[in-house]
Amino acid sequence: MDEFGLINTYFARAPIGSDVLQGIGDDCAVVNPPEGRQLVMSIDTMVDGMHFPYGTAPERIGVRVMCAALSDLAAMGARPHWFTLALTLPEADPDWVAAFADGVFSIANRYECSLIGGDTTRGPLCITVQVHGSVEPGKALRRAGARPDDIVYVTGNLGDGAAALKVIEKKMTVAPGSFSYLLKRFYAPTPRIIEGEMLVGTASAAIDVSDGLYADLAKICEASGVGAMIDVARLPISEHWSSYTNEAQAQEWALTGGDDYQLCFTVPREQVGKLENWIREGRIVATAIGKITNKHELLLVKNGKPFELERKGYDHFG
Amino acid sequence: MDEFGLINTYFARAPIGSDVLQGIGDDCAVVNPPEGRQLVMSIDTMVDGMHFPYGTAPERIGVRVMCAALSDLAAMGARPHWFTLALTLPEADPDWVAAFADGVFSIANRYECSLIGGDTTRGPLCITVQVHGSVEPGKALRRAGARPDDIVYVTGNLGDGAAALKVIEKKMTVAPGSFSYLLKRFYAPTPRIIEGEMLVGTASAAIDVSDGLYADLAKICEASGVGAMIDVARLPISEHWSSYTNEAQAQEWALTGGDDYQLCFTVPREQVGKLENWIREGRIVATAIGKITNKHELLLVKNGKPFELERKGYDHFG
Repeated sequence: MDEFGLINTYFARAPIGSDVLQGIGDDCAVVNPPEGRQLVMSIDTMVDGMHFPYGTAPERIGVRVMCAALSDLAAMGARPHWFTLALTLPEADPDWVAAFADGVFSIANRYECSLIGGDTTRGPLCITVQVHGSVEPGKALRRAGARPDDIVYVTGNLGDGAAALKVIEKKMTVAPGSFSYLLKRFYAPTPRIIEGEMLVGTASAAIDVSDGLYADLAKICEASGVGAMIDVARLPISEHWSSYTNEAQAQEWALTGGDDYQLCFTVPREQVGKLENWIREGRIVATAIGKITNKHELLLVKNGKPFELERKGYDHFG
Repeated sequence: MDEFGLINTYFARAPIGSDVLQGIGDDCAVVNPPEGRQLVMSIDTMVDGMHFPYGTAPERIGVRVMCAALSDLAAMGARPHWFTLALTLPEADPDWVAAFADGVFSIANRYECSLIGGDTTRGPLCITVQVHGSVEPGKALRRAGARPDDIVYVTGNLGDGAAALKVIEKKMTVAPGSFSYLLKRFYAPTPRIIEGEMLVGTASAAIDVSDGLYADLAKICEASGVGAMIDVARLPISEHWSSYTNEAQAQEWALTGGDDYQLCFTVPREQVGKLENWIREGRIVATAIGKITNKHELLLVKNGKPFELERKGYDHFG
């Protein structure tokens, strides 16, 4: 089976919307951009043994790369449209590719994101996905919009990614139900697309938590020229794993563990009432964890005292 | 130096057009699509030791990946706008990254293509570039437009990529001037952007020759539901290397050698006069090498007799 056969057999089944004039099968894809909207795009690579453990099942890899890629669109408040996929594989194993494609499409279809192009090459296992979405002009959620006194929120729970990795690496054992929860959080972290689109016009800044809350909130602060004060006791941490470790360790993972793919966002005071209503009505799962300051530093407090971190965040070259 | 430092230091110097609202530095890029045009995009990966020899100078790698990526836009007749870059590196060597970036921007700037986003990860050397361009609605050059009796053309010379590889691998020795010519053709193959845009409205189908003329013309034939007859004696072959091998070998490389990055295109009879005028006026360098047939086969002839190929084209998994 040659590389073209691979692509055509396993990937050309993508649902193609009427905005796609040419999908897979030519030198380029051709699309009609959504009228009156701005385009939003991001490219993400995952490397074997670095972003997922060696030997991970191909379907899980496919799910995970799509969830992580879509998470970047979520962070901008964008609606997904199309994606392209560059797949580097040591060998053209049809079973592997079929299962990987199943994983990719299970997520892409859910978020109505059409595969429009790709490239398949031989080499060490490495996957790059580029996602494209759109926003109303000027409405993209940016890192740079946080202002002093804004409230800092985060969706869902923090630290799940770090706890999941411990479980996967057999360094922590949890109950079967919690094991399933953590595996799902690692391999299929829900991209917060719905939440991101909801927050357009309400949040002043947003980022997806992929390198750890501390490191990612620091990026919002840097881009916005502000600081933040976070109450460590308010960090949302799942009971699925918190009872298997001590409080300090759990908070450390919540602050510095990567791969959570939650949204961290800031809300101006005048919008907080609306957001709190949404939370009460169950329209969004989010927790207020602190506020933006004009101090140009990221301050962690716990029970009124400064909280010191040992490790400040995930970094591939750190 | 962490990965973010890398990106910011070496890549954030990209010239940003007024259509780019957010470049590098957020979860996604945000751009205004060009008004009244369709978007054209392609993703391409190059792997160390597969698409360039191990130990290739980083600037050359940067040039080559951009030339190859832009070549896909050329094949659609598209005008380049933006690109994203996913760089997987075994280590964060600042000198390597700086030189690589020099190579990338030397080509990107020439074709007014702005870097708007990227990802840097640790792993075996592998580079993925996604390029975005635009065309007038419905005007993209596609593989599927060839009709029986159209004339088949190719820009520039064929077989340079294969000959260059022999020289680089020290399997062939040529004169110093020819050595320079071949190195340039391998590491900096001019993407035929100007020719591609010229051919919009004149060519009926086009493809860039990356897997070898035979394999790539076969894709036009398959997509168009036609066949072709190619006169092997008319293949444009450079004198820089043809005298260092025999005629049969030279023609074989011209037909099946990859990495030429020329355009193969078809022209309806009623447009041939215009194209031949352009050739005479020096506005485009192109050679008529055969014609499209209704036979559903790709027939090679030489001096009126069928010409048999030993190897039909480059395939990464072949």
